[in-house]
Amino acid sequence: MKTDIIVIGAGPVGLFTVFEAGILGLNCVLIDNLDKPGGQCAELYPDKPIYDIPGVPYQTGQEHVDALLKQIEPFDYKLLLNQRVDEIRNVGDSWEVKTSENNKIESKNIFIAAGAGSFEPIKPNLQSDFSNFEGQDIFYSVKDKNELKDKCVTIFGGGDSALDWTIELSKICKELILIHRRDAFRGAPDSEKKVRKLHQDGKIKLLTPYILQSIQGDKTVESLSLLNTETKEVHSIETEKILFFYGLNKKLGPILDWNLDVEKNKILVNTENFETNQEGIFAVGDINTYPGKLNLILSGFHETTLAVQKAFTRINPGERVPFGYTTSSTSIHEKLGLKNT
Amino acid sequence: MKTDIIVIGAGPVGLFTVFEAGILGLNCVLIDNLDKPGGQCAELYPDKPIYDIPGVPYQTGQEHVDALLKQIEPFDYKLLLNQRVDEIRNVGDSWEVKTSENNKIESKNIFIAAGAGSFEPIKPNLQSDFSNFEGQDIFYSVKDKNELKDKCVTIFGGGDSALDWTIELSKICKELILIHRRDAFRGAPDSEKKVRKLHQDGKIKLLTPYILQSIQGDKTVESLSLLNTETKEVHSIETEKILFFYGLNKKLGPILDWNLDVEKNKILVNTENFETNQEGIFAVGDINTYPGKLNLILSGFHETTLAVQKAFTRINPGERVPFGYTTSSTSIHEKLGLKNT
Repeated sequence: MKTDIIVIGAGPVGLFTVFEAGILGLNCVLIDNLDKPGGQCAELYPDKPIYDIPGVPYQTGQEHVDALLKQIEPFDYKLLLNQRVDEIRNVGDSWEVKTSENNKIESKNIFIAAGAGSFEPIKPNLQSDFSNFEGQDIFYSVKDKNELKDKCVTIFGGGDSALDWTIELSKICKELILIHRRDAFRGAPDSEKKVRKLHQDGKIKLLTPYILQSIQGDKTVESLSLLNTETKEVHSIETEKILFFYGLNKKLGPILDWNLDVEKNKILVNTENFETNQEGIFAVGDINTYPGKLNLILSGFHETTLAVQKAFTRINPGERVPFGYTTSSTSIHEKLGLKNT
Repeated sequence: MKTDIIVIGAGPVGLFTVFEAGILGLNCVLIDNLDKPGGQCAELYPDKPIYDIPGVPYQTGQEHVDALLKQIEPFDYKLLLNQRVDEIRNVGDSWEVKTSENNKIESKNIFIAAGAGSFEPIKPNLQSDFSNFEGQDIFYSVKDKNELKDKCVTIFGGGDSALDWTIELSKICKELILIHRRDAFRGAPDSEKKVRKLHQDGKIKLLTPYILQSIQGDKTVESLSLLNTETKEVHSIETEKILFFYGLNKKLGPILDWNLDVEKNKILVNTENFETNQEGIFAVGDINTYPGKLNLILSGFHETTLAVQKAFTRINPGERVPFGYTTSSTSIHEKLGLKNT
């Protein structure tokens, strides 16, 4: 497979790269470890409001992703999901990328738009293996809440995800237990208040300060052993499904092996075109660093727009980069207008 | 008057500055030469679609401005319209700005977000001076159309403003004449069709191809001399009021006198915080230049966001700039959420 730009990461900045590339007549292949486009916005806070996208007073994470997907509809791009880029190698004046699904793609330009790296949920540290229950009775996110309907569900965690899902799932579960290692929560005070009210009203059980010791069950999860960290007593509770909201670990992973200049886990770039020390490899969005850098989506949009200009000249050496405002360029206007209005 | 940031120019980038300043607890005074906020978007292409605002697949210029105004509603700012910044002077470690309306504002930070400069109407090139009629019988925009009611009005121009005002004013004027130097119009074909119909129906007069040679009158405008560019004949017509819609010139104006490093009519800035060679004076959006610069609104948003960080440290020296995502910071969330949802 060949393409003009390989984009590693299909978060907002990766998606907008398709737009800016498309304006210049370039196509992209996007690769992401997650099972859908949108990155952190879609995975960590799909329902949370974002207020700082310029010109968008209010939008949820998922709405923002959906808007970007609509914006790039007129353009030519391919999404390779559920796979990580494992290897990058130099092939003449191009790069070849190999993914964990054994896809090989060749391109003159690689844009690393991997946010804070690839996400991996933090798992409980237990003595016995519980991986056989994962994806069946043990989850680290809620893909479809209806699968938890009328079940006995136990949630572990003290942040917003734990609180928000406790409130949400209390409406449909048969029994809901929230367990946290201390009697204070990191999440929004308002959500904590709601959770404590649900507990007082007998709609959920709130167990603190408890930590998980072990999970029992044969083919399915049956019960848990919990240690009260104050009294040191051990309790057993029955449950069917377990949700761990211990947060996500972000890992740079194989990116660290690509001979890129890195500073505090961020890739160093110049501010003219956000290219790294390797010609043709750019880093845009939260994964890069330079003097003044802020980890904001709006900065990633700017960075990738400038980087695409350089990518164009690598593909069309000596050619002037066509630049037109979408308001005044008739050809762009027609191309976009036909599909959008 | 004192403020945290004086913003020169109330276009999209100037407006978004209020948002980023507000997030950090800073307030702004915005100054603009035009009679409304929005800059070029509102003045030159309010009805034209913009396709390249990230996360907004389709929006007109005016819709974009309206969205930004809604986004900054929760914050403290003042708009000073219909005035130009004429002077800037150093007062200790602050700056004092004086406007053409004699407003004086003091601030540690000036953000020049003046786009391509201030807009000034293109005037006819005549041998004799006609400035004594300006604002009385000669106008370059319509502030209040009722002042033209029941008058003999002559409009010059071939663009949308000339066509739109011909259609609009034909309903209330005693007599309306549209004059253009050729028999073809730059404006919307649909508007041209309407104008030609009004002419056929005897509701207006359409004179082409004519150019203006001179304006006659003692205390008020009385008549015009027109040259037919094909036949070379000269005609005289009587009129009371004249509207020139020859377009707008963009001028840097007094900005050139502020001892700022300028390159090809653009203000030079660094890419860390977009400060100019004068401490506390920043330039953001289309008016600045640096290696890689593109004149896109999305770049201006990035630039002003980084500049606001430096402005904060000038006001609160030694203090760490508070940085929180609007999604995760409860205080920001509440402040914005209360007003926006």
